[in-house]
Amino acid sequence: MERSVSDLKERIRAGRGLVPAHKVIRGGQLVNVMSSEIYPADVAVYDDMIAAVGDVEAYIGPETEIIDAGGRYLVPGMIDGHIHSECSKLSITSYAKAVVPHGTTSMISGLDEYISVSGLEGLREVMDEVKKSPLKVFWGAPYKTPYTIPQSTIAFNFNKEVHAEVQKWPECFGVWETVREFIQEEDEDTLGAISEAFKNRLPVFGCAPMARGNDLNGYLCAGVRLDHESYDHEEVVEKMRKGMHMLIRESCVTHFLEENIRAVTEVNPAFARRVSFCTDDVTATDILSKGHLDNVVRLAMKAGVEPMTAIQMATINSAEAYRIDHLVGSICPGRIADILFVDDLNEFKIEKVMTNGKMVAENERLSYELKAPERSSVLKGALKCKMTTKADFEYKVSIPSGEATVLAMDVKGPFVRKRRDVVLKVENGIVLPDVEQDVAMVSVLERFGRNGNKSLAFCSGWKLKKGAMASSAAPDDNNLVVMGVNAEDMSIAANYLIEQGGGQVVVADGEIVEFLPLPIGGIVSDCEPEEVAEQEKRIDAAARALGSDLPNPMMYMFFLPITAIPDYAITDVGPVDYLALTTFDPVLDLKEA
Amino acid sequence: MERSVSDLKERIRAGRGLVPAHKVIRGGQLVNVMSSEIYPADVAVYDDMIAAVGDVEAYIGPETEIIDAGGRYLVPGMIDGHIHSECSKLSITSYAKAVVPHGTTSMISGLDEYISVSGLEGLREVMDEVKKSPLKVFWGAPYKTPYTIPQSTIAFNFNKEVHAEVQKWPECFGVWETVREFIQEEDEDTLGAISEAFKNRLPVFGCAPMARGNDLNGYLCAGVRLDHESYDHEEVVEKMRKGMHMLIRESCVTHFLEENIRAVTEVNPAFARRVSFCTDDVTATDILSKGHLDNVVRLAMKAGVEPMTAIQMATINSAEAYRIDHLVGSICPGRIADILFVDDLNEFKIEKVMTNGKMVAENERLSYELKAPERSSVLKGALKCKMTTKADFEYKVSIPSGEATVLAMDVKGPFVRKRRDVVLKVENGIVLPDVEQDVAMVSVLERFGRNGNKSLAFCSGWKLKKGAMASSAAPDDNNLVVMGVNAEDMSIAANYLIEQGGGQVVVADGEIVEFLPLPIGGIVSDCEPEEVAEQEKRIDAAARALGSDLPNPMMYMFFLPITAIPDYAITDVGPVDYLALTTFDPVLDLKEA
Repeated sequence: MERSVSDLKERIRAGRGLVPAHKVIRGGQLVNVMSSEIYPADVAVYDDMIAAVGDVEAYIGPETEIIDAGGRYLVPGMIDGHIHSECSKLSITSYAKAVVPHGTTSMISGLDEYISVSGLEGLREVMDEVKKSPLKVFWGAPYKTPYTIPQSTIAFNFNKEVHAEVQKWPECFGVWETVREFIQEEDEDTLGAISEAFKNRLPVFGCAPMARGNDLNGYLCAGVRLDHESYDHEEVVEKMRKGMHMLIRESCVTHFLEENIRAVTEVNPAFARRVSFCTDDVTATDILSKGHLDNVVRLAMKAGVEPMTAIQMATINSAEAYRIDHLVGSICPGRIADILFVDDLNEFKIEKVMTNGKMVAENERLSYELKAPERSSVLKGALKCKMTTKADFEYKVSIPSGEATVLAMDVKGPFVRKRRDVVLKVENGIVLPDVEQDVAMVSVLERFGRNGNKSLAFCSGWKLKKGAMASSAAPDDNNLVVMGVNAEDMSIAANYLIEQGGGQVVVADGEIVEFLPLPIGGIVSDCEPEEVAEQEKRIDAAARALGSDLPNPMMYMFFLPITAIPDYAITDVGPVDYLALTTFDPVLDLKEA
Repeated sequence: MERSVSDLKERIRAGRGLVPAHKVIRGGQLVNVMSSEIYPADVAVYDDMIAAVGDVEAYIGPETEIIDAGGRYLVPGMIDGHIHSECSKLSITSYAKAVVPHGTTSMISGLDEYISVSGLEGLREVMDEVKKSPLKVFWGAPYKTPYTIPQSTIAFNFNKEVHAEVQKWPECFGVWETVREFIQEEDEDTLGAISEAFKNRLPVFGCAPMARGNDLNGYLCAGVRLDHESYDHEEVVEKMRKGMHMLIRESCVTHFLEENIRAVTEVNPAFARRVSFCTDDVTATDILSKGHLDNVVRLAMKAGVEPMTAIQMATINSAEAYRIDHLVGSICPGRIADILFVDDLNEFKIEKVMTNGKMVAENERLSYELKAPERSSVLKGALKCKMTTKADFEYKVSIPSGEATVLAMDVKGPFVRKRRDVVLKVENGIVLPDVEQDVAMVSVLERFGRNGNKSLAFCSGWKLKKGAMASSAAPDDNNLVVMGVNAEDMSIAANYLIEQGGGQVVVADGEIVEFLPLPIGGIVSDCEPEEVAEQEKRIDAAARALGSDLPNPMMYMFFLPITAIPDYAITDVGPVDYLALTTFDPVLDLKEA
């Protein structure tokens, strides 16, 4: 969001009405989130900017396009306060097709999944893609990557030296998702990033679920400004009384709005000023069926929030939290022209969308053809790991046969893994997975050509009866995760993804059952949102056909490498104990037959 | 406000309660401006930081000092949203002595008068002085200096190249007081400063009195975030509806609060969220008699604003407007420990003040001895202009004797100068001032050793009967301004200030009548506020004794070099026509006798 001197001159002249507006929106009801007022006002738009609001007849020239708002409400484009769009498996271009028609015109993101697979070079390429899309991204530089403890392997390590460089970029609006544990552990890179942010007068975005009392105080003393993860409204209340901005998260996995909003509706309406919304993690299916931030606004109104307040939460409040309110979040002169046309504020269905001064969507669809850019080899590169063999997925032990007591990571929900000790058979020096006992093998293969790491461990809860599944999209590392009860199928699954350059696959009896291609960085696709939703449905159905009764077996699997989820995880360096913050040997005991 | 990694570690530990607090304030009523709530809460302070708020018993160690609040309200230290402290003639040290006991613990300032007389070197020295004082300054880099059109001479020219450098300083929080005219004229340096601010993600502070309609739109399209100068509440309403933060100014010259606050009390209480206060320009006399921001809060309450809202305007709202709310403006963990102790919120008398974690004031006085630092030659340097003679203040014309019709700048108030054509006698080739017709001579001498410029013109309205007066403090150029009806006395006045190294002087009949020394940069003094107030009273009395019936003859004189005041001004390059933006020849016609 730079402004050259000549650009400023042009904008000033446009604002003064010395040159005619490109477009004028007539006959709308302005939802003025700055003054909490609604009144009739016209809007003059010059290039990507709102030049004037109110009586704008003087801004009309012979070439000015007149847009009739037909009495509709004019609402500022909405801002997703915290989102990893990559987790939707949609490229920026495809993601924009999904969310912009629902009124989301800006998002705050670390684009961190792209960084983990393609480094700064890939990031710059994605930033270029953003500029060609109707969606704006306000980028926060990840406090560090990888996010894992102990440190796993990804394509690019973000550290304090990198911060010293990227915080100078005009695209950087702060430090992304600074996790409490790294502050509490006084991690050098994390504190280095914060130190750099103080120097550069940039805000530090947080991530502190369940932080309360002294832990929260310690976190705040590091200078973190906001949080997007509270488990109940009392947590929201404490954080806000202690001065944080609070983003209420309504993702497709965690539905916090109904509970968190009680801080405003039941405890204190004054909190509304610093509450905003984020979706963090959404699927194409969810967006297509429920909507995006429009849905969150509807949920807030349903929970008792006034339309004006709910809209402020989705617009100006996020803009202020992230200090980008001079650019977006309101319909005011000088701001970027992101304007939603809405018939009825209570229904809050987005009829039309203007972004960057252009009408881009109508009736929940983009109204023009948006093509994805050509990708360079940085984003389209192959998975850089060696082809596997069956033996790679066989757990070898020092006894030829007998019994092994192993610690299986037992999944109890998408974000809980518990210890389960189980006795497995050892044959030919190999600990065997056990369909009857619901124990599968899981492996993570480093895929960036850095060290060829491979890990192997035991997991439980998927109830796989046969076959294997694999994914090269697995936040936040996005290494290749393979799970199965058959080493042969696991190897076939892994090799197929390596051959295809990324995606998700389900294999049974030596055959590819279903494949979801993710050719960009191995994590996202340029397919239409509808198509990706369909593919997701099919891949999950295929995974469930292996025997799993989990709602989303693929997703439960690909969260396994996140070491911040209690109590166990697995990365390319091995299975990880969340509490001890170390890798562990999953074989607890061996008994020779 | 930097934070090194080791500093962050210490702060995190203090926040977590792993090391005991240095101080604990017990038994106070927390005025929580973040949540608009008042409730009992204790505060733990570590070094200069609030470590915890609420139940802080766990933060008490054997060495922790317990401060009993005795049931008093704990209010965040107040923030002056726009102030040139130099205009008070008090050095930072002396100014802190005046305002901190009244609860002002932070100010937003360009420190621009210091820059005009001593450049970046002097600025850095003043910034060091700030760090030793109980007052914090959040510095905005002047959009350009000098502020004059046509350009006059000062010690240091601030331009876009300088911005590229200083905007990187951690002390810089934005661009200071960007005046509308320079934006409207598309001034290269001004737009260069703004362009640089976009690149650095820093806010642009404004100055747009009477900007309305298209002019305001054009101004906003340059990206200016806030304004501190509105002449009536309708202007406030328009600016706020168009997305600006509004600082209501209550200076010792312009009293805007009562009128401006009607935007909140009569038009729309929702505006309160983005309204804050500034004093812009205050004298020691005013502060000592009325108070400072405490007085502004009292005025707001008197005008019908709730105490909580008025306090928010004086604290968190300014902090948010300037994007420094992570540092100041609230009593929350991680913020700087600036805390006011107040008995009664309606009376709003500041009983005690803590700044940077230290108890510094009580009963309207600093409670410890604060010494001004030694000054380097940069700030203590002599006035770099040649000694004058009587002839320097004689207006020479091409006729030996007769009559001259001249344009006299006729002062109609501190901020209005009108054209007055008057016929004066010419004797010995010199146009004579005329006591009977109330016409005096006024001259501005460049005093930074850059070019030796001297200007001479005619003025009216001071009703001087004899003598001369001079001042080396004359915002914003601070060149040497001399006025008088006697060339001999004018020369004596100028030479005395040159000898003394700056100040204000009144001369009559060849004698120094009164002198107010301003040894630091020729603009401020390290004297106690009471002493400066006394000196100001004496110097004005002396000036009035020359015959003037103006309330403040010296001040009316030293505003003459401000070219932004209609309709006429005078700088070292000559008398200036405000509308034509050029210098002019004050002699309109000559008639030889």
